[in-house]
Amino acid sequence: MLAHLSAAAATLAQAAQHVDPVAFVVLALAVILAGAKLGGDLAVRAGQPAVLGELVAGIVLANLDLFGVTWFRGLASDPTIAILAQIGVVILLFQVGLESTVRDMMKVGVPSLLVATFGVITPFALGWGVGALILPDESWYAHAFLGATLTATSVGITARVLTDLGRARSAEARVIVGAAVIDDVMGLVILAVVTGVIVGADRGQPLSLGETGLVLAKATVFLFGALGLGVLLSPRLFSLASKLRGRGVLLATALIVCFSLAYAASAIGLAAIVGAYAAGLILEDVHFREFALRGEQHVKDLIAPIASFLVPVFFVLMGLRVDLRAFARPEVLGLAALLTAAAIAGKQACALGAVGGGLDRLSIGIGMIPRGEVGLIFASIGTTLTLRGQPVISQAIFSAVVIMVVVTTLVTPPALAWSLARGEARAARRATRTGAG
Amino acid sequence: MLAHLSAAAATLAQAAQHVDPVAFVVLALAVILAGAKLGGDLAVRAGQPAVLGELVAGIVLANLDLFGVTWFRGLASDPTIAILAQIGVVILLFQVGLESTVRDMMKVGVPSLLVATFGVITPFALGWGVGALILPDESWYAHAFLGATLTATSVGITARVLTDLGRARSAEARVIVGAAVIDDVMGLVILAVVTGVIVGADRGQPLSLGETGLVLAKATVFLFGALGLGVLLSPRLFSLASKLRGRGVLLATALIVCFSLAYAASAIGLAAIVGAYAAGLILEDVHFREFALRGEQHVKDLIAPIASFLVPVFFVLMGLRVDLRAFARPEVLGLAALLTAAAIAGKQACALGAVGGGLDRLSIGIGMIPRGEVGLIFASIGTTLTLRGQPVISQAIFSAVVIMVVVTTLVTPPALAWSLARGEARAARRATRTGAG
Repeated sequence: MLAHLSAAAATLAQAAQHVDPVAFVVLALAVILAGAKLGGDLAVRAGQPAVLGELVAGIVLANLDLFGVTWFRGLASDPTIAILAQIGVVILLFQVGLESTVRDMMKVGVPSLLVATFGVITPFALGWGVGALILPDESWYAHAFLGATLTATSVGITARVLTDLGRARSAEARVIVGAAVIDDVMGLVILAVVTGVIVGADRGQPLSLGETGLVLAKATVFLFGALGLGVLLSPRLFSLASKLRGRGVLLATALIVCFSLAYAASAIGLAAIVGAYAAGLILEDVHFREFALRGEQHVKDLIAPIASFLVPVFFVLMGLRVDLRAFARPEVLGLAALLTAAAIAGKQACALGAVGGGLDRLSIGIGMIPRGEVGLIFASIGTTLTLRGQPVISQAIFSAVVIMVVVTTLVTPPALAWSLARGEARAARRATRTGAG
Repeated sequence: MLAHLSAAAATLAQAAQHVDPVAFVVLALAVILAGAKLGGDLAVRAGQPAVLGELVAGIVLANLDLFGVTWFRGLASDPTIAILAQIGVVILLFQVGLESTVRDMMKVGVPSLLVATFGVITPFALGWGVGALILPDESWYAHAFLGATLTATSVGITARVLTDLGRARSAEARVIVGAAVIDDVMGLVILAVVTGVIVGADRGQPLSLGETGLVLAKATVFLFGALGLGVLLSPRLFSLASKLRGRGVLLATALIVCFSLAYAASAIGLAAIVGAYAAGLILEDVHFREFALRGEQHVKDLIAPIASFLVPVFFVLMGLRVDLRAFARPEVLGLAALLTAAAIAGKQACALGAVGGGLDRLSIGIGMIPRGEVGLIFASIGTTLTLRGQPVISQAIFSAVVIMVVVTTLVTPPALAWSLARGEARAARRATRTGAG
């Protein structure tokens, strides 16, 4: 009887394998979502953004292998989970893009443009320098890539803090959000160039300065070309789509625009996220008017559940890829510490760009500190690039980048609250003095 | 210069491959969604359900290879697209399950239970017979599997027609919907048993009648165990979850229940969809009360965009797997024709179960005809089962099953409209006669 039962059990286990390659994937998704929500809850209770909790949940689960539980670490190298995480990132950048329009980007003004420029160049240079200092054996490509991971601001965290403090509509908030939009774009262009150069070098074709310029030009032309064409064509596309019968047409059309531009960006050598972000920038409320008149939900509301499902997969996966054992090596710990310092100090150059009277420069510099998703996305792309058979971003460097992301995210809310209070006190003193004189 | 440009282009193409394995997937998703929505539009205009258009869009795209365009056919064998389609099916069955509760299932009543039983046994037997007749060289396992694909009703199509005709609240509608819920469950149990038997046979362990009974018992115990436990535990789970901070907790909790039960079903040798459907049945509005009080959207509204994104991937993929060249072989054409006849005739046995006064039996039999998603899901599982190295459901048999699904879906709306009108006329005549007598 027992033999029968165990034979039947073996048959069933075999059946599960035969029937459903999806079984492992759904189990992994259930575990990842549970980890993300529990981690997110703890982070929110500690006054931190939920994304930090998702990242830490991944770090905790993967490093249970220190106690012999290795199953979670296995998730970190599953190709299907990796693809789902990447679709999640494409959806996330599309969602971020939907929050601004091309018009918003055009009118951010001189302070935002300067803040963004200083806030991209300085961390890029500092990150490169830290790489050269701590990792002299790695090629300069790895150093440059490390610099690139420090460029883009994750404005979501700052926006949340400003909202919580009732300062979302201040001049500083406008400059920060405008600069973050621009430095996303600049960061993506830097990523494209660095990636192009590394891929060329890996194929034994080190690019000359002229060719590097060509890649830069191509990235810029794509981005502005896609934005220009998109702004022209998307109203017509949505007007045509609004004539289609059946359900889910609006969501499907928005996803088609997002996925097509993500593919187009990839096809010419840029990251898929560049295209997804451009797609989000292109789409404006006015395109959805005909759908809205029929009482359909807004695209943002339709994308939100898909993002809730797939975006945590990316952040938990990034956490799962962190190996705490790497920090037993002093140079990795040193790299994490210096990289974090470079990330924080680099963005203080933003204060130089905050031209114009009465702006609280310190708060602007602090508001630009958080790196979050874009730094992680860049680093994860770095782990897939190879140079002489080795990944450009090694497991240890990746772990250091994640620590930098965690720390820059952790320090921003209290630092920003402090500097805004300080700025207000100064402004009050100045007003008193002016009134007295 | 040209040489430089082409070298740069090659570098960029290489970069795209290096950087983004997601590029192909997003392009495929854009194409599939576009095909699904255009096909759906044409189907709706022709008075047919959108799902039929999605299926036909897939058939058209794949068979463009008859004209030398082979790219779309390639999508049919991509493993990532297959996994996304399967996640789509899991979400679909969860969504279908959410439309009913365990309590609804308990009170469908004797007519629904009898209608479901006749409507499962007769098509199963007829499908098995058609297989034996047309495919004498295939094993009896393939014949049994073919029977299983004919068991489950796709009630969505009938429900839509009844709604359109203003008959959604009639006694016939209640019997049909109740029976469709029950025959989904019965179909899933038959699938589990047939699959278990085939997997055993493939491993050289043909199951005895007793062991077949064991598989049947296991499937039944799982289903009722999961439903019983789920009904007990899920209120507590959602009450705990409602205490978590952060966004997207309700959706994540619902998905965790769905994915966990889908995995549990797989782990004991049932199809993942059995678990997903059970998860949907378990969840009831009352569990979401605490979330609803906070003004959060209903789970159905949160699942809908995810379903709009992933479910069409499944239906277009099923269409992509149809090879029209198979119909050049007379036995495949014969199989498709006889299978369709068996599918239609088999469900007319449902009329026998429609006990109770005044029910329009012909309309009930016709209302049970559409096969839709479940037949396709069963057939696609059959293509992954092997017996002596050959898939149990071959490419040609799969194509015949798809044709059966298309035809049963096409004939139902006009047939049902006719039979309901006939039933009403009869009832009116009877009423007149009774009134006169």
